[in-house]
Amino acid sequence: MVTQEQVKEKLESVLVPSVMRSLVKMNLVREINIEDGKVDITLGSATMTPDVQEWLKKKIEEDTKLDDVDTVNVSFTDGLPKDFNEIGNVIAVMSGKGGVGKSLVASLAAVSLQRQGYEVGILDADITGPSIPRMFGINTRPVGSESGILPVSSRSGVEVMSMNLLLGAESDAVIWRGPLIGKAITQFWEEVLWGKLDYLVVDLPPGTADAPLTVLQTLPVSGIIIVSTPQDLTSMVVKKAVNMARQMSKPIIGVVENMSYLYVSEIDKKLEIFGKSRGQEMAADAGVPLLANLPVDPELAKLCDEGKVELYNTDVLAGFEDSLSQAVKVLP
Amino acid sequence: MVTQEQVKEKLESVLVPSVMRSLVKMNLVREINIEDGKVDITLGSATMTPDVQEWLKKKIEEDTKLDDVDTVNVSFTDGLPKDFNEIGNVIAVMSGKGGVGKSLVASLAAVSLQRQGYEVGILDADITGPSIPRMFGINTRPVGSESGILPVSSRSGVEVMSMNLLLGAESDAVIWRGPLIGKAITQFWEEVLWGKLDYLVVDLPPGTADAPLTVLQTLPVSGIIIVSTPQDLTSMVVKKAVNMARQMSKPIIGVVENMSYLYVSEIDKKLEIFGKSRGQEMAADAGVPLLANLPVDPELAKLCDEGKVELYNTDVLAGFEDSLSQAVKVLP
Repeated sequence: MVTQEQVKEKLESVLVPSVMRSLVKMNLVREINIEDGKVDITLGSATMTPDVQEWLKKKIEEDTKLDDVDTVNVSFTDGLPKDFNEIGNVIAVMSGKGGVGKSLVASLAAVSLQRQGYEVGILDADITGPSIPRMFGINTRPVGSESGILPVSSRSGVEVMSMNLLLGAESDAVIWRGPLIGKAITQFWEEVLWGKLDYLVVDLPPGTADAPLTVLQTLPVSGIIIVSTPQDLTSMVVKKAVNMARQMSKPIIGVVENMSYLYVSEIDKKLEIFGKSRGQEMAADAGVPLLANLPVDPELAKLCDEGKVELYNTDVLAGFEDSLSQAVKVLP
Repeated sequence: MVTQEQVKEKLESVLVPSVMRSLVKMNLVREINIEDGKVDITLGSATMTPDVQEWLKKKIEEDTKLDDVDTVNVSFTDGLPKDFNEIGNVIAVMSGKGGVGKSLVASLAAVSLQRQGYEVGILDADITGPSIPRMFGINTRPVGSESGILPVSSRSGVEVMSMNLLLGAESDAVIWRGPLIGKAITQFWEEVLWGKLDYLVVDLPPGTADAPLTVLQTLPVSGIIIVSTPQDLTSMVVKKAVNMARQMSKPIIGVVENMSYLYVSEIDKKLEIFGKSRGQEMAADAGVPLLANLPVDPELAKLCDEGKVELYNTDVLAGFEDSLSQAVKVLP
């Protein structure tokens, strides 16, 4: 007799068109019933046009015709993406100050977690200044149906959703008022089919206004990574972010100091071009570990510009990966 | 016979308490009437508590007792600061991207114009991440009355208003929704007594959302300076700001590229640590002059951290000063 497990195993290799993850990983398999050689499979229809549903139906009917199966019947059930999303932990990357490298840290955190074998997504909540797609070299338009849309997979399999993917031209300005921006972020949470993820990394916009507020109030953020730089000015603004996180009772899991130094190989020196490192101090103030001192690295800047952040591989990143894997252990 | 001019000359040396500018520069002298040795002076009362009014009254009565004056009478007329503000040009410093050095450029622009002999103020419209006061080393709480408040003067006489000056502690977070932030900016315009200024430089927050929108819609911005950096990622986001300015029919007067290079004296080299300079290209795209290529300068970073941006004095800044004085000529 064919078992549910056998059918599920088959479904694990059926990829959802345009996102390179299986029906199981997308959490769309709702029910498998087996009776007298008759297999009934119910799938969530979220984000799928009738065409896609038809294609999947045929594909599954073929793939699951196991030896002792007479008929395979695939049906669909309605529901919004949020009904199918199962996200282990939402980690928000935050900084009161802009341009400190928040998106870079969000990207590197996602890449690090993904390299450790986790299923990872990035929700780019910086609606008016989104930079995640550029770093990953993604410019595919997300697909979907009236019921929701799919994220776009990066080359290494990180799932990405960003306002930039939805704009006509990359340089179009999103001139929106706060409430609309809040709505966009809520939609990125409820109407994007993330499926099953271990970690969803959220790249917050700078500041302590609408967008970070909305994320912290509406998304079940379980941990915050704070990004700072050595500049005194930055640490002042970053402290605001720390206070905001505290006021909203969201746990900070660590601090990353970016632009800590520049290594100049000609003179074999680390130059503290933005001032003396304050990462350790910031972390101690917030009572959390310092996850990394990231340097100004022209090679990394180049990779980000070329959309190849996933190819970055240095000792510094390995160190970040280690401390991040320690830090996420405090999460539920 | 005493003349209006003589009285006015006297009033030019009467400073408004706590802002180091005269009654004339603050545009508070509303009327001077002279009849039969009797001098009647009417002043705007905006921002002045009864104490201050009393003090001014006495001070003026003494100072203007010229030879052929019998009595001096000082009275006050109501009115909001906006009724007394007379601002030549509002220049907004903008960038879609955070952390590119917008506040630095706003500060240097103000300092440059001030060195050329203009009366200059800075309105820090970055409500949630204000950094202007820190750069100028200002931490005085602004004073005022129910009718409005006064900006705080920097050591070289630039008038500054920023949310950070109004907060209890510098690191308090302003957790406000868009509409409230818009309101704060409007108040900085209408309820702060700027008096007579040649230029009010507005440091916009990053992004293309509420705060820049509100400024561009409610303040009579006559020119915009766009700030960029060599990173490809930045130029993409900065183009959004350019498009936003165009959509709102606000003229861009120039582009400043910040963090263009780092000069390492040990090897006498300019390192393009954030990638190849794109300033010229950005400026050409926007059809405006490139006002400066500012380097990453540890000395400048230090001055900013120490609140001494006004002491910066290099060839690079002199070049910026020149091109800025050319660029502002297009303003009305």
